[in-house]
Amino acid sequence: MGADLSLPCSHTHCFNPSTGTTPFRSKSKCNSFILYPFTKSLHIHIPQSANFSMDQALKSSGVEEMETHKRNSMSLIFDPHKIDHQLLQKMEYDALVWSSLHGLLVGDTNSLRSGRVPGVGMIHAPFSLLPMPFPESHWKQACQIAPIFNELVDRVSLDGKFLQDSLSRTKKVDAFTSRLLEIHSKMLDANKIEEIRLGLHRSDYMLDEQTKLLLQIELNTISSSFPGLSSLVSELHRSLLHQYKQHLALNPERIPQNSAVTKFAEALSKAWSEYNNPRAVVMVVVQTEERNMYDQHWLFINPNNTYQVTSIRKTLAEIDALGELLPDGTLVVDGEAVAVVYFRAGYAPSDYPSESEWRARLLMEQSSAIKCPSIAYHLAGTKKIQQELAKPNVLERYLENKDDIVKLRKCFAGLWSLEDSNIVNDAIEKPGLYVMKPQREGGGNNIYGDDVRETLLRIEKEGSNENAAYILMQRIFPTLSPAILMRQGISQKDNVISELGVYAAYLRNKTKVIINEESGYLLRTKVSSSNEGGVVAGFGVMDSIYLV
Amino acid sequence: MGADLSLPCSHTHCFNPSTGTTPFRSKSKCNSFILYPFTKSLHIHIPQSANFSMDQALKSSGVEEMETHKRNSMSLIFDPHKIDHQLLQKMEYDALVWSSLHGLLVGDTNSLRSGRVPGVGMIHAPFSLLPMPFPESHWKQACQIAPIFNELVDRVSLDGKFLQDSLSRTKKVDAFTSRLLEIHSKMLDANKIEEIRLGLHRSDYMLDEQTKLLLQIELNTISSSFPGLSSLVSELHRSLLHQYKQHLALNPERIPQNSAVTKFAEALSKAWSEYNNPRAVVMVVVQTEERNMYDQHWLFINPNNTYQVTSIRKTLAEIDALGELLPDGTLVVDGEAVAVVYFRAGYAPSDYPSESEWRARLLMEQSSAIKCPSIAYHLAGTKKIQQELAKPNVLERYLENKDDIVKLRKCFAGLWSLEDSNIVNDAIEKPGLYVMKPQREGGGNNIYGDDVRETLLRIEKEGSNENAAYILMQRIFPTLSPAILMRQGISQKDNVISELGVYAAYLRNKTKVIINEESGYLLRTKVSSSNEGGVVAGFGVMDSIYLV
Repeated sequence: MGADLSLPCSHTHCFNPSTGTTPFRSKSKCNSFILYPFTKSLHIHIPQSANFSMDQALKSSGVEEMETHKRNSMSLIFDPHKIDHQLLQKMEYDALVWSSLHGLLVGDTNSLRSGRVPGVGMIHAPFSLLPMPFPESHWKQACQIAPIFNELVDRVSLDGKFLQDSLSRTKKVDAFTSRLLEIHSKMLDANKIEEIRLGLHRSDYMLDEQTKLLLQIELNTISSSFPGLSSLVSELHRSLLHQYKQHLALNPERIPQNSAVTKFAEALSKAWSEYNNPRAVVMVVVQTEERNMYDQHWLFINPNNTYQVTSIRKTLAEIDALGELLPDGTLVVDGEAVAVVYFRAGYAPSDYPSESEWRARLLMEQSSAIKCPSIAYHLAGTKKIQQELAKPNVLERYLENKDDIVKLRKCFAGLWSLEDSNIVNDAIEKPGLYVMKPQREGGGNNIYGDDVRETLLRIEKEGSNENAAYILMQRIFPTLSPAILMRQGISQKDNVISELGVYAAYLRNKTKVIINEESGYLLRTKVSSSNEGGVVAGFGVMDSIYLV
Repeated sequence: MGADLSLPCSHTHCFNPSTGTTPFRSKSKCNSFILYPFTKSLHIHIPQSANFSMDQALKSSGVEEMETHKRNSMSLIFDPHKIDHQLLQKMEYDALVWSSLHGLLVGDTNSLRSGRVPGVGMIHAPFSLLPMPFPESHWKQACQIAPIFNELVDRVSLDGKFLQDSLSRTKKVDAFTSRLLEIHSKMLDANKIEEIRLGLHRSDYMLDEQTKLLLQIELNTISSSFPGLSSLVSELHRSLLHQYKQHLALNPERIPQNSAVTKFAEALSKAWSEYNNPRAVVMVVVQTEERNMYDQHWLFINPNNTYQVTSIRKTLAEIDALGELLPDGTLVVDGEAVAVVYFRAGYAPSDYPSESEWRARLLMEQSSAIKCPSIAYHLAGTKKIQQELAKPNVLERYLENKDDIVKLRKCFAGLWSLEDSNIVNDAIEKPGLYVMKPQREGGGNNIYGDDVRETLLRIEKEGSNENAAYILMQRIFPTLSPAILMRQGISQKDNVISELGVYAAYLRNKTKVIINEESGYLLRTKVSSSNEGGVVAGFGVMDSIYLV
């Protein structure tokens, strides 16, 4: 049975236009969003399923009270759209200067060489001028569960059978996942054991406006982007709040310290130490063109010469051409032994245009280098596994602590396989409440709205295995907030929704866990504004959180 | 009588092509240079004149010995052209990354908005990949005399009659200097007294290869550029030397700490304090388009929130439109009281396209705001005053300490008025040994080589006052060194000459000197390479010094 809840007349619907352009060509995880400005209240049906807990339903009943609380919190902060024009111009200018002087940069898509050569064609990264109010309790909740997710990924990665079985149907319809599984299967057959395991994850959440629940969107186990730039945005905001304290009356201390870049750098360095070959390097697997290169470089700039790590950057094709495996398992690329392979490419089908790239991936997996992530970690972060873990009694197989299990489940949105005919029928009836997500990462191919109905009906009619290529997820309706977005040196007042990503580093060796901690955050604020037609697509900019 | 000295077959001749383009459009003090690759030795005649001391002549005789010493010093360091190709590529890449992440930036001339909007169209500032060997004794000498020059400028600025008299002939032929003198004259008539005086100077030197003398090129008393970026280049080089210590065997500690940005920021802040109006601002006078804006911004970024200073940026035209003088002398621009006027424009005729800009300059001068520089400080830095100060017994009028006078004179190159017919005749005969310099700053109109002869003959023939528009200066022949220059993301091996600028801050009030110190340095390394025609113009890149 569903619970009917009233919604205020404006709210956001997730949408990812496949034609959109974004300054971050490297990481298609930057979802885009769209606003439908409804003029009357809408009845929202929350589908009930095995993993939609009563706990959530109970919380939902307190909407009116929470809504009031939210409005109070917000008005205690400020509406950036109401800041005096002249003051705003000064702040915008200062923020652009700060970004430039402190390396909050990306390659400009207007510059041909900016994705290949550092130091040319640079432009400030898109950012929100001011931090976004965010409930402290939800922030703490997201931080608290980060190490539990780390542990979960690690345990799941060791259950090769679970990964293979869960993805067996997906394999038939998704060539990309199939290739990953093939490599994984080879490793299982060879009884390859990863004794040192490094995870640099980012778990993404949205705060559902009605239920006040922090719900997980996805867990990134490969190529978690923006640890470098997100740390800078927090610093930028703290600096602005300090500089304009007389005008804004916001306390810079309410922006949590964001240590993403130092924590990830430290984890990479400690992993390198664990490998125990002082001559070996950290190899960053990169795309041929990478306009988000500065985010990556921040991890290796090593300001205080704290670490001894040398890094090299190679594409999958280069690794295939220049890589070899020594008899003892050492991976040597371009003459250098590799201690850690850090993937900032290889998460999307487009990263493997030929067999060369797949050979490189296999070569690395076969080696003794520490893979961040290993093929098993990579698979553990797929949508299908996310959905399988949300099934009853699955978390219990990997985690002992009941409290931990409760904490994780609390942030699980409704997730279903397309084999669940009740849910499929419900989604055909009320497509606006669901998102169809393809297994593969980074494709930006989520399906929303009426397209959900059409796709489900087509798959039903064709009776193919295509249903294994998707999962269904409860659609989340986050709060719409006013913001000022800075892109290409131009400011725009907009109404936005935000997605919180919490970074977490995990490192263990044969005998013990060395690192398992929350490691900073990324707030991505997504443009939502309406034009006359009622629909405008927008893109994510970086933001930070202001605890309320 | 002249002293004939042998020169090795290759050396540099200063040349500033009027058609040259440079990434630094704001500050035409970035002279360009050219190399004439002589195939046989050239007899260099050092003209003897009143202010060409015997001390210099004596030193000249030790050329051979010193030359050997230099070669030894250099070979003890390294030849960057001999660095292994692969290693070099890594260093270049790392240097470009470092520049980008640490704000060593300029606006890209290829970007339309990059001179107006921060954060867009950015490119790394041109820099030399590695520091340039520089004799420690000369470095110390330049640092030691910096406060003496500060004191000299201050004393000269108080001698209104000297400034007016010295420039009286120049006034007739140089409209720009004439307008400056007009304002200066008004201030004298009004008995306007600047009690708080702030100087942010940079004295530029070249090390003459033959004589081993550090000779002053000019003393900048207005808009001394690159305090921000030069500090960064030193840091970049120290960082590279540390990172590649196993390959280069160069000690990062031999690159002197470059505190230009902090010292200048501190001086501006202390001047602001002296003005004693907590609500007043520092106003930076800027050009409409400024691609070197990041160098300027570094002075106001205030990383540790040490100072309370707020800065505004205004063009001369804006100051004319928005500025007013309160009855008590307070300068108010756009509603803000101005404590300090910091000129990063206004040094060149092109900065005053209409009467509006001159009105703004006068308005500021009439106000009680601290001018950096005042009109008198500005005039004290002109070429003509430099030449007058080099005359016998002139320094003695302003400085009491005999040692100080000796120290300054030691770095004076030969400087002559065109009224000195002996020198003019000598220059006509041996034009290669002289540079003709126009009075006005920032025009890049120095005259070299055969053009010196032609211009002098023309002026002689016409019998006009035009000779007052120039001074003659001894041509300096600095050492040619190998370097690797990074421009637009591309490296180039080149032979270069270097110009050392030593920053110095000076601040005093009615009763005492508050700051008088050497404040960091700028090494500008200038491209000198030959093509088939024997002549290629090149531009300055930033560098740092490695003490030998």
